[in-house]
Amino acid sequence: MDLSVIQSLHKRSDSKVVLLVLDGLGGLPRESDGLTELEAARTPHLDALAVESICGLHEPVAPGITPGSGPAHLALFGYDPLDYQVGRGVLAAMGVDFELQPGDVACRGNFCTVGADGSITDRRAGRISTEKNRELCELLQQIELSDGEVEVQTIKEHRFLVVFRGAGLSENVADTDPHAVGLSPLDPEPADDDAAKTARLAREFVDRAREKLAGREPANMVLLRGFAQLPGWPSFEEVYGTRAACIADYPMYRGLGRLLGMTALEGGGEPETKFEALKENWNDYDFFFVHVKKPDKAGEDGEFDTKVDAIEHVDHALPQLRELKPDVLMVTGDHSTPWKLVNHGWQPVPVLINSAYCRADDVRNFGERACITGGLGPRLRGSSLMPIAMANAIRLDKFGA
Amino acid sequence: MDLSVIQSLHKRSDSKVVLLVLDGLGGLPRESDGLTELEAARTPHLDALAVESICGLHEPVAPGITPGSGPAHLALFGYDPLDYQVGRGVLAAMGVDFELQPGDVACRGNFCTVGADGSITDRRAGRISTEKNRELCELLQQIELSDGEVEVQTIKEHRFLVVFRGAGLSENVADTDPHAVGLSPLDPEPADDDAAKTARLAREFVDRAREKLAGREPANMVLLRGFAQLPGWPSFEEVYGTRAACIADYPMYRGLGRLLGMTALEGGGEPETKFEALKENWNDYDFFFVHVKKPDKAGEDGEFDTKVDAIEHVDHALPQLRELKPDVLMVTGDHSTPWKLVNHGWQPVPVLINSAYCRADDVRNFGERACITGGLGPRLRGSSLMPIAMANAIRLDKFGA
Repeated sequence: MDLSVIQSLHKRSDSKVVLLVLDGLGGLPRESDGLTELEAARTPHLDALAVESICGLHEPVAPGITPGSGPAHLALFGYDPLDYQVGRGVLAAMGVDFELQPGDVACRGNFCTVGADGSITDRRAGRISTEKNRELCELLQQIELSDGEVEVQTIKEHRFLVVFRGAGLSENVADTDPHAVGLSPLDPEPADDDAAKTARLAREFVDRAREKLAGREPANMVLLRGFAQLPGWPSFEEVYGTRAACIADYPMYRGLGRLLGMTALEGGGEPETKFEALKENWNDYDFFFVHVKKPDKAGEDGEFDTKVDAIEHVDHALPQLRELKPDVLMVTGDHSTPWKLVNHGWQPVPVLINSAYCRADDVRNFGERACITGGLGPRLRGSSLMPIAMANAIRLDKFGA
Repeated sequence: MDLSVIQSLHKRSDSKVVLLVLDGLGGLPRESDGLTELEAARTPHLDALAVESICGLHEPVAPGITPGSGPAHLALFGYDPLDYQVGRGVLAAMGVDFELQPGDVACRGNFCTVGADGSITDRRAGRISTEKNRELCELLQQIELSDGEVEVQTIKEHRFLVVFRGAGLSENVADTDPHAVGLSPLDPEPADDDAAKTARLAREFVDRAREKLAGREPANMVLLRGFAQLPGWPSFEEVYGTRAACIADYPMYRGLGRLLGMTALEGGGEPETKFEALKENWNDYDFFFVHVKKPDKAGEDGEFDTKVDAIEHVDHALPQLRELKPDVLMVTGDHSTPWKLVNHGWQPVPVLINSAYCRADDVRNFGERACITGGLGPRLRGSSLMPIAMANAIRLDKFGA
C-alpha cells in the first residue's frame, strides 16, 4: 500500500507505540531436539505476552528474499523496501555514524591491489587490518579537490567511506569497481549531465589516492561503488504523525532511524539500559524503535546457544518495558539469521502485536512454529506491520465514508 | 515481485532443485468419508516427506481464478501469469509440439459451418472427428500465400493450428470468430500498421480455405482466433541462473518448458521412467521440472478412484527420486482438478518444499486440510514458490546491504 494512504489517515493521539526489534530473531531447528533458537530459549515473559497478543510471522521483503539490514528495517517501519531502496553509500555512512547532509554523495571505498600495469590483482587488498586502514585513510584525508570537498572515514578492514560535498552533486555515477581481478579500475562515469561534476570530483579523488598510495602494497589503489544521496522520502512523522525516537547502539540502526527523521537517543548496551532510556524519554515521543543486535550477531557466528542467551536476556528484561504500559507493543525481528545459515535468511520472522484492541489469537508461546497459526498469518508482508500497529494505537482514521 | 529483482540476486551454486508437478493435484471431498482424492490416497512417502518439509497451499493465479495449464505452470516457474500472458495461438502450437520460430504468428483455427448467405450456423462444424479434421487439414496445407508461408496442423475434432511465417509479422490481428451464430466470420483486422501484412496473409488464407472447403459441409469454413507470437521473456536460466530441464510426456508441458528455455529431455511414461530419466541427466542440469499428467486427466473425467491411483503411483515411485538427494524438492500441482468439477478448479493446491533450510512445520501428512496450517500458508501466490525454492537452494543473494 502506498504510504500516502496512511499519511492521509493518521490522527492525533496520546498513545505510545514501542517496536522492539531482536535483530535476526528467526532461526532454524537444531538436530538434537528440533527446536529453533527462539523455541529453545526460556522466554516466560514473551510467552505470556504472546497469549495476550495477535501473533504471526512476517516476510520482510518478499517470498524467498533474504534482506539486508537496511531493507529489513525499512519494511518494519512500513516502507516497502522494493519501492524504497537506499544506496550502498548511504548505508555505509550510517554504519560509521557519519551525518550525511542533503546533497552529499556517499560511496563505499575498498582498498585494493593493482599490478604494475594498473590491473587489479586483489579487490580487497588482502583484507588489510582495520588499523592499517586507519593509517591509510589519514593519507586520503589530506586530499583536496579543486571544486568540492571530500571526507574519508575508516569502516573496517579494506572498507572505507567516501563522501563528496559541494553544490550540484548527483548520485548517478557508475562504480569504479569492475568486480573482477585482471581488469583495471573503471572510470567513474556520469550517467547524465547532472552527474558530470560528481564524476569529475570522484576521478580527481581516485587520481590523488593512487598517487598517495603508490608503493603501499597491498593497498596501493582504491575502488569506489554505490554512489548515493539521502533519499527524499516522507519522514516517519509525516507518514504516521508520531514523534519518533530510536534506541540502538549500532550506528547502522541509528542511521536508519535518522534517515526517516527519528531522534537517536542515548542509551545503548544491554536491554536493561535500553529500557531505562525508554523510560527516561517516555513523555517526549510517541513511537520508540528499540534495537537489540545480539541475536543477529550470534546467528551470523553460527552460535545457537549464544543466540538463545541473547533472546533470554531480552525476555528477562521485558517486565521493565511492560511496566511502562505502552498502548501498543510490537516484538519481532528484522529478518531471520538462522545459526545454520551463518548468515541472514529468507525465512519468515515471528512477530507479536499487543494492545487493548489487537484481538489475541490462540498462540500460547512465541516461536516460529507456534506463530504459524496466529492471527497475523504465517507470511504477512513486513511493511504491513506498522499500519497495523498504528491502527492498534488508534492513530489511523477511517478510510472513506 | 518483478522477476528482475530475482535476476539481480541469483548466484552460482552446485545445488539441485526438483519441481515435481502432479497435474490437477488439488481435489474435493467425496461423500462417503469426506476425504479428497489426495487425502484418500495412501501416500506414506509423501507424508514422510511432508514431516520434514514446509507445507501449505498455493493459489496459482489469484483468488477465485481457475487457471488453464499455461498460466498455472508459468506461476509455478515464478512468472506471474497476470503479467506473463501467453497467447492462445502459442499454446495451441505447444499442444501439438509445433516448434514456433521467433517472429512466427500462430493462431487457433476452428472448422465451422456457414449457410448459403455466409453466416455461421455452427461454430464447431458439428465437432467433426479428428480423422475428418486430418483429411481437411491436408487440403488446407496445399494453400500457398503470395507473400509468406502458412503451416496447418490438426489438433483435435474441429480444432487446428495455423502458423504464418515470414518477415515483419505481428500478433496484433483480431479474431475472425464472432463468437456467435447467425453472424458472418469477421475480417482479420490489423490493430496497427505493423500488423497489416499479417492481416493480409490471414485474409488470403481464409479466402483460399473457403474455396477449398466449399461443399464440404458441415466443415465448409474456418474461424481463426488468438493470433500470437513467442513472447520475449527472460528465460528461466536468465532469471534464476540454473540450467533447466523438463521431463514431461505431453507436448503442452514440454512446450511451456521450452518457452522459458528449458531443455525437454527424453523419458516420458510412468513416474518410474521419469525418475530414471532424472537420474540419467542429474549432472547436466541444476533444475528439473518433472510433470505427471494422470491426476489431472482423472479429475477431468470425474474419476475419484483413478485420481487416487495416479497419486499413489507417484508416491510409490518417490523413493527413487529421493535417492538422488535433491537439495530442494518441491512437490505440488499446477492447479486443482477436483473430480466433482470434472474440470480445472480455483481451489488452492497442496505444496511442500523440502530442504535443509526449509524450516519444517507441524504438518504430518500431505493433504488439502493438513496443509492449511503449514508454514507456507493456506493461499500463497503460486509465483512466490520458485523464489522460495531457489532461496532454499542457496541460489539467491541478499537484497540490499
